[in-house]
Amino acid sequence: MNRNQAEEKLNTVERELTALWHAMGTLSTDGETAAPKESWRGRGRTMETLAGMEHRLLTDPAFGEALDTLLAEKDALEAVLLRRAEEFQELLEEMRLTPAEEYAENQRLASDASAVWHDAKLSGDYDAFAPYLEKLIAARRRFAERKDPDRPAYDVLLDRFERGASMETLDPFFDLVRRELTPLIREIAAMPQPRTDFLHRSYPVEKQRLLSDRVMALMWIDRGRCGIAETEHPFTDGSNKWDVRITTHYHEDDVASSLYSVIHEGGHALYEMGVGDELQFTILGGGSTMGIHESQSRFYENLIGRSEPFCRALWPILTEIFPEQLADVTVEEFYKGINQASPSLIRTEADELTYPLHVLVRYEMERRMIGREVPVKELPDLWNSLYREVLGVEVPNHTVGILQDSHWSGGAFGYFPSYALGSAYGVQILAAMEREVDVWGSVAAGDLAPVTAWLREHLHRYGKLLRPAELLRSAGVEPFEPRCYIGYLQRKFRGVYSMN
Amino acid sequence: MNRNQAEEKLNTVERELTALWHAMGTLSTDGETAAPKESWRGRGRTMETLAGMEHRLLTDPAFGEALDTLLAEKDALEAVLLRRAEEFQELLEEMRLTPAEEYAENQRLASDASAVWHDAKLSGDYDAFAPYLEKLIAARRRFAERKDPDRPAYDVLLDRFERGASMETLDPFFDLVRRELTPLIREIAAMPQPRTDFLHRSYPVEKQRLLSDRVMALMWIDRGRCGIAETEHPFTDGSNKWDVRITTHYHEDDVASSLYSVIHEGGHALYEMGVGDELQFTILGGGSTMGIHESQSRFYENLIGRSEPFCRALWPILTEIFPEQLADVTVEEFYKGINQASPSLIRTEADELTYPLHVLVRYEMERRMIGREVPVKELPDLWNSLYREVLGVEVPNHTVGILQDSHWSGGAFGYFPSYALGSAYGVQILAAMEREVDVWGSVAAGDLAPVTAWLREHLHRYGKLLRPAELLRSAGVEPFEPRCYIGYLQRKFRGVYSMN
Repeated sequence: MNRNQAEEKLNTVERELTALWHAMGTLSTDGETAAPKESWRGRGRTMETLAGMEHRLLTDPAFGEALDTLLAEKDALEAVLLRRAEEFQELLEEMRLTPAEEYAENQRLASDASAVWHDAKLSGDYDAFAPYLEKLIAARRRFAERKDPDRPAYDVLLDRFERGASMETLDPFFDLVRRELTPLIREIAAMPQPRTDFLHRSYPVEKQRLLSDRVMALMWIDRGRCGIAETEHPFTDGSNKWDVRITTHYHEDDVASSLYSVIHEGGHALYEMGVGDELQFTILGGGSTMGIHESQSRFYENLIGRSEPFCRALWPILTEIFPEQLADVTVEEFYKGINQASPSLIRTEADELTYPLHVLVRYEMERRMIGREVPVKELPDLWNSLYREVLGVEVPNHTVGILQDSHWSGGAFGYFPSYALGSAYGVQILAAMEREVDVWGSVAAGDLAPVTAWLREHLHRYGKLLRPAELLRSAGVEPFEPRCYIGYLQRKFRGVYSMN
Repeated sequence: MNRNQAEEKLNTVERELTALWHAMGTLSTDGETAAPKESWRGRGRTMETLAGMEHRLLTDPAFGEALDTLLAEKDALEAVLLRRAEEFQELLEEMRLTPAEEYAENQRLASDASAVWHDAKLSGDYDAFAPYLEKLIAARRRFAERKDPDRPAYDVLLDRFERGASMETLDPFFDLVRRELTPLIREIAAMPQPRTDFLHRSYPVEKQRLLSDRVMALMWIDRGRCGIAETEHPFTDGSNKWDVRITTHYHEDDVASSLYSVIHEGGHALYEMGVGDELQFTILGGGSTMGIHESQSRFYENLIGRSEPFCRALWPILTEIFPEQLADVTVEEFYKGINQASPSLIRTEADELTYPLHVLVRYEMERRMIGREVPVKELPDLWNSLYREVLGVEVPNHTVGILQDSHWSGGAFGYFPSYALGSAYGVQILAAMEREVDVWGSVAAGDLAPVTAWLREHLHRYGKLLRPAELLRSAGVEPFEPRCYIGYLQRKFRGVYSMN
């Protein structure tokens, strides 16, 4: 096989794989949003079959040969082609670890488990979900052990979501988080609290939908390329730059919940929509690692969205849509209210300060689940005792406890630390941005365009073309330093609570 | 290849093809419903690629060999296997007529054209759609000429939607329709008209959505397996018995429009949901021909839905949801109002009596489009003059004229006659049903279960297992006789208008 034939083969296989991924993404998103409840019975079978086809395309010996041919002349390849070949090589090496039939069955398992989890969460019935969770854990552990039998299985899984992440790097990170933030959280608990009563007045869902539209417009999200739907658990799915979907969940008595989930998912959406044209429909066409992805969503949600300047920009919109609910509220009260820091039950609704502790709980859970330290039936007790120990809250039922997040139902063990890492990256990204852009002047004026433009220019457009470390370096971001994140949180919350 | 290997091969290919069809159906339905507007740019590419994969699966020589092996022992095959092999053989023969690349391009063309048509319809801009229509016509004509160069191309296309249909059989059918119905329509135009003012009061969309829910419940449509969404043009898509979607379009000033489109699509949905378990995920798993499919939808919409007993069953629901709008209306007035017969512009909103003339216009259009008798740029004039000549109405713009229907944008030339044939079949199906079931007693009591049960037992469960003629015969339906349909319409509308 010569170089041209190899490139041709790569193009053909990539074309078919990206089509399958697009189809599977749409089936899955449709399944979470518009599809009738029982449709999972058919969807699981189809997902299984499509996964089998995906496996066959990737493990076709001629494709492996094409990749070898291309990678043998590494230096002669232009950058995009080289990275496509490298990414496929990694994917192929992983795919070879799992026989086609098992791979397809795993896909079905994840598809079915999502439907089962959904019902189980609503009814708080952990036992209904437990058998699926057991199989999902076993499947991911098996994968990890095959991939690298010499490393702890959880490390192998962590590395898939954030390159280089391992318990060795995350333990000190979470230790620091806990050591530095817990005393501050305790100190804050003793302070006079901002009023939050107005956040829990009656906010009709119809009006909250309107607020979502306005917030997405404020973020310059092109609605012609990004839809919004409603699901139990908010998420973003990006098929290509013309087709991104975000979801949210409206609670009539909690206006901040959906507001900040839309800003969070909007951050993911902007990333997917900002990937360069030449990378569309290639394996490089989505965002980089999940850590980088979460850095973008958490950046918009917190660094921008929960800042005072942004609250000021949002205020005219909020008071226009909810004049009665906010009649007796000032923008300062709103800013302080949405930044009230106090240990709570739900990760996605947690304030910025206690948030990393929610992630820590999941990190502790996962390392023990994957490390065979706890049987599946004992996981809820572990969850509840970790929440008691780390956050000091009692978990009243599994709906707001171990069943609250969708990630495990899709087999995504090792994903959660990306949220905390992403939050930490975000702070350092902001520092780099502030050197070039008048961030706060623009945000206060309600103009997010310079912020998004900087992110697009320095991060989004590269998709997976640059590896995460290289990507951040080329954007002028300093090497990872968790103390920046801790320092930011300390400064911000001491300010919110007028401490020293 | 021995018999077992052949069956194995059939199973494998069928499994992958039904998965691809499921995916393509979901991509397309999602595209029409939830997807952001610009997403067609990526979807077209994916549909093209998936179609190429479909082509490759079908035209794999080993698959052809498997079919030959099975069909060589026809008599030894059990019924379902035999029909699966036969259906695939037909599909394969068609697929071989079009090279893979061209087939894939056609799929993309149809996908892109749907998006373009949608915009063109809204703005009434025929010229924007014309280049796509031109290509779609050329592609279908090319297909027909390859399939049977000795028959008129339009006959070949007609036969694909309704086996045995041809201009030779449809000409006399439509001649009869026009000859018999036109004088009646004219006679009716001179009669005192029922009041219809109340149908065009303000019916809030929110309440109409509630009405859809209630009507679907009345039809025993299992909402766990059937979703409803809103689109420009109503349609039904069925992936399998657990996953059927219908769509509708709400007009605030026209309560009957969505009401009867929901009943119509509900008829399609019940058919798809009623196909037997053993046929799910096989090539026999959908409804039979489009003529039979439309017989089910038009059966519910008109024979049942626009009958006086059904109006009586519906009345408590209607007056509960719209007490003010219907305060001064009697159920008799409602029945007569929704059966007001008068020539109009829109097929999907036409009354039962003038409806077949709308179909006739499309039949005349298509035979000339496919028969090369009219250039694409002159089609709007032809449409307008046919509406003037056949229905006596002036078409004010293309939105309510040639651009009103979605069918041609998907390349479905030859589909429309199925609506008229289906309506005609329906009358004869009803006659067979009435011999076994107290249809009108049940309907008047608001109980559609016996009707649906009969259809499921005699028609739905067979999917494509029985060919249409055999299917109707086995249900006890008399041989096709258009005079039954004409006679039904004459009796019904003489009754509505109290004529002799």
